[in-house]
Amino acid sequence: MGSLQNQKPENGFAGTIKPLDPEEFRRQGHLVIDFLADYYKNVEKYPVRSQVEPGYLKKRMPESAPYDPEPIEEILRDVQKDIVPGITHWQSPNYYAYFPSSGSIAGFLGEMLSTGFNIVGFNWMSSPAATELESIVMDWLGQMLKLPSEFLFSGGGGGVMQGTTCEAILCTMVAARDRVLKKIGRESINKLVVYGSDQTHSALQKAAQIAGINPNNFRAVATTKANAFGLTAEALRETIESDIKSGLVPLFLCPTIGTTSSTAVDILTPLCEVAKEYGIWVHVDAAYAGSACICPEYRHFLDGVENADSFSFNAHKWFLTTLDCCCLWVKNPSALVQALSTYPEYLRNKASDAKQVVDYKDWQITLSRRFRSLKLWLVLRSYGVANLRKFLRSHIKMAKNFEGLIGMDKRFEVVVPRNFATVCFRISPIEIGGKHNQIVTKEEAANNFNAKLLETINESGKIYMTHAVIGGDYVMRFAVGSTLTENRHVILAWKVVQEHANALLTMS
Amino acid sequence: MGSLQNQKPENGFAGTIKPLDPEEFRRQGHLVIDFLADYYKNVEKYPVRSQVEPGYLKKRMPESAPYDPEPIEEILRDVQKDIVPGITHWQSPNYYAYFPSSGSIAGFLGEMLSTGFNIVGFNWMSSPAATELESIVMDWLGQMLKLPSEFLFSGGGGGVMQGTTCEAILCTMVAARDRVLKKIGRESINKLVVYGSDQTHSALQKAAQIAGINPNNFRAVATTKANAFGLTAEALRETIESDIKSGLVPLFLCPTIGTTSSTAVDILTPLCEVAKEYGIWVHVDAAYAGSACICPEYRHFLDGVENADSFSFNAHKWFLTTLDCCCLWVKNPSALVQALSTYPEYLRNKASDAKQVVDYKDWQITLSRRFRSLKLWLVLRSYGVANLRKFLRSHIKMAKNFEGLIGMDKRFEVVVPRNFATVCFRISPIEIGGKHNQIVTKEEAANNFNAKLLETINESGKIYMTHAVIGGDYVMRFAVGSTLTENRHVILAWKVVQEHANALLTMS
Repeated sequence: MGSLQNQKPENGFAGTIKPLDPEEFRRQGHLVIDFLADYYKNVEKYPVRSQVEPGYLKKRMPESAPYDPEPIEEILRDVQKDIVPGITHWQSPNYYAYFPSSGSIAGFLGEMLSTGFNIVGFNWMSSPAATELESIVMDWLGQMLKLPSEFLFSGGGGGVMQGTTCEAILCTMVAARDRVLKKIGRESINKLVVYGSDQTHSALQKAAQIAGINPNNFRAVATTKANAFGLTAEALRETIESDIKSGLVPLFLCPTIGTTSSTAVDILTPLCEVAKEYGIWVHVDAAYAGSACICPEYRHFLDGVENADSFSFNAHKWFLTTLDCCCLWVKNPSALVQALSTYPEYLRNKASDAKQVVDYKDWQITLSRRFRSLKLWLVLRSYGVANLRKFLRSHIKMAKNFEGLIGMDKRFEVVVPRNFATVCFRISPIEIGGKHNQIVTKEEAANNFNAKLLETINESGKIYMTHAVIGGDYVMRFAVGSTLTENRHVILAWKVVQEHANALLTMS
Repeated sequence: MGSLQNQKPENGFAGTIKPLDPEEFRRQGHLVIDFLADYYKNVEKYPVRSQVEPGYLKKRMPESAPYDPEPIEEILRDVQKDIVPGITHWQSPNYYAYFPSSGSIAGFLGEMLSTGFNIVGFNWMSSPAATELESIVMDWLGQMLKLPSEFLFSGGGGGVMQGTTCEAILCTMVAARDRVLKKIGRESINKLVVYGSDQTHSALQKAAQIAGINPNNFRAVATTKANAFGLTAEALRETIESDIKSGLVPLFLCPTIGTTSSTAVDILTPLCEVAKEYGIWVHVDAAYAGSACICPEYRHFLDGVENADSFSFNAHKWFLTTLDCCCLWVKNPSALVQALSTYPEYLRNKASDAKQVVDYKDWQITLSRRFRSLKLWLVLRSYGVANLRKFLRSHIKMAKNFEGLIGMDKRFEVVVPRNFATVCFRISPIEIGGKHNQIVTKEEAANNFNAKLLETINESGKIYMTHAVIGGDYVMRFAVGSTLTENRHVILAWKVVQEHANALLTMS
């Protein structure tokens, strides 16, 4: 019978529920570790993209919460039976969709420790180790990325762990907004303009929206294939000039290192120069590709960051740290603090009063915060800089191999140059030339065909990729980044693509 | 030697790093489970509030990240040696500060599963189980709280798990803001007014600040001891009327069930009536006390919620679910979605296109989200409704016992009536009457004395409480809520308070 048997009510008042009994914790904890170890062993066998239909779970669940306790063994059986089929297996070696989330043992253990201590680290006092470890690890990581010292605590700036890039952008935008409104007056909030490109992640627009920027003042500057879908300084300047002529006030620019659709890179040096002229806050979003920049041969993608105001990347994407962990550095923490600080009486304490310490609550949206630095610290120590570089390079090499395989099959084409470990490819329009007519153009036919091909591949459950539309072209994105992916999986993936293409081309 | 020994570079390229090897995961996972089980066994022995000095950790840490891997055994030794002393032990049974964070085995296991699957659940497609389990569990919990059906999916509303109340307030405020601005025009953003009381959590002011509300338009309506520090409908109406006369536009009201300082309750029915008259969005913040409302005898504190627009409480505070887990229900999800939705091409998918599913990315600030529902589901199933009620009642009973002990010592007084499991008390000014003079009033002397008493108690490391200032009085807050706290700890805590009071009263 279940482990919670002895938690059944005895005689009256509550004496019997022991939800944090150490020995019961040990027993149940070991069960779940084994459950997950087995999951990783078997993850390759599951269809990568979940094959359930909307509403599947409601049919399997009771209408209301149970009145009486249920044993962990039964719950784990239900996880296997009801939850696992509804999971899209981001940890599968055959997962190439969106940008993968690279889990690791070290990241997992760090999250366990953080969850186990379960501290609420809003200020230094609430758990000094949480704040101090975060500051230390952020400086370590900043050094690994060769960020200019102004971004590090040791150089007067500093780093903070946010949940996601959305938060990093929102916090820095609010800091920028308030800095400007302090000068020009709050009534001008409707004049502020935010700049990205048509390739920038939707997080920028959403942050602007939340921060109260007028939706008419969000600029997605057009990019072109000729510029590899990077934002150019010329296009940016032209847009800014036009806004200024209209009486608007340029506020915030968000260049991207490794865009979501095609991993394009906005070249920072010229963009930061333009931004500087107009007093615009530059936040560099390297959510995906920032990780690669710890390798000397990729660091050049960050050239120019010395003229930005803030920089962030997601350690939960491609750095073996489990969701969520966005690393944000700012040159001027006081701009963040001025915009985001609150100091109610019930949080007052000697260390904060004496301004001896960092209180991270003033660097982020929320008050409460988890002990996130533990997982990044464990990742850095468990693997070391050398292995982390190797890990990243191995993915880039696998993506290159995949690109090579595409190159050997004339029916396919790589649509944009590969910068990192993501390949954007499609069946060439020439190959399906016969299928267009006066209603559907050749390009439309190609887009439709590739969309159909991708859907049949994903339906097979063998691999999972997602799509993008780049310069009007529908492309399949092959993003290597799952921790368990090895070259054999990449070779298998290519076979899967070819087989489905063969079938679809023959059918049509 | 260390487990990662075999990850040392062999001949060249990356073949050797296996950060998600199932057997290594199992081995290291068991080690950390044992580490944490031992931590819980020993947690009572540590000073509750960390006794380190600012900067302690920098002295113990290397200047940069290690180049080579280090074994988990060594890392865990360092956690024990360097991190544990810097932790304020929120899981200690002697922890009574702020509001405790009640961890549990079930909550921990749920977080483990979520971290292990490591899915990024921004939309239904990305992992159907994550979205569907969340919707189901939120309906369960809504039923347990007897929320009106309009707040449940089954009644046209719906629930979502946010990280913290700060996010819940920000999201609903942005929804309210955009609903109003759509009617009156964006240029009126500077006219919008947000209402709370002088007891409302700082999260409200911060959310207003982030959402671009003019800081001059934030109203912390005064409360009085006569009204038990609750916001009254009369005071609210008066403030609103004055704002309208000044040409401003009332936007958002945030009543609290269980304020941070004194667990005061803003009585919802009359407040919602006033808000309705003026078309104000009402968000009910029951961050702390919402949990208690699953007990029939406390449900009346939510009376009137049927006329609010949204409601949230923190399951990570007093509901055995580890940080972070704020449960938010809204009557009108489309208001959230309209304010927070983005739908870039790379996230397009059949299920979302067909509008068959909930895409929670549009209910929150961030795109990426963890599989948080697992932990709440495990808590509900592992303990069941009956035990959860018992758990909450046991804390309330212990707080009542503590209150009883205070009552037997004439030197002390309970400063505000106890509503839940938090007692606000102090040494009475009469007791230290001799210490005031013309420079320091009797009340000031009492405040200084109680502040000093609290600091000496906390410095002892035996228990940890924090303070508040309520109606000008400095009070010690005794918040029962830590999972491991039993009545014997409460009795011990009272002895600690008395001993320190004796010593300090004798000295002075």
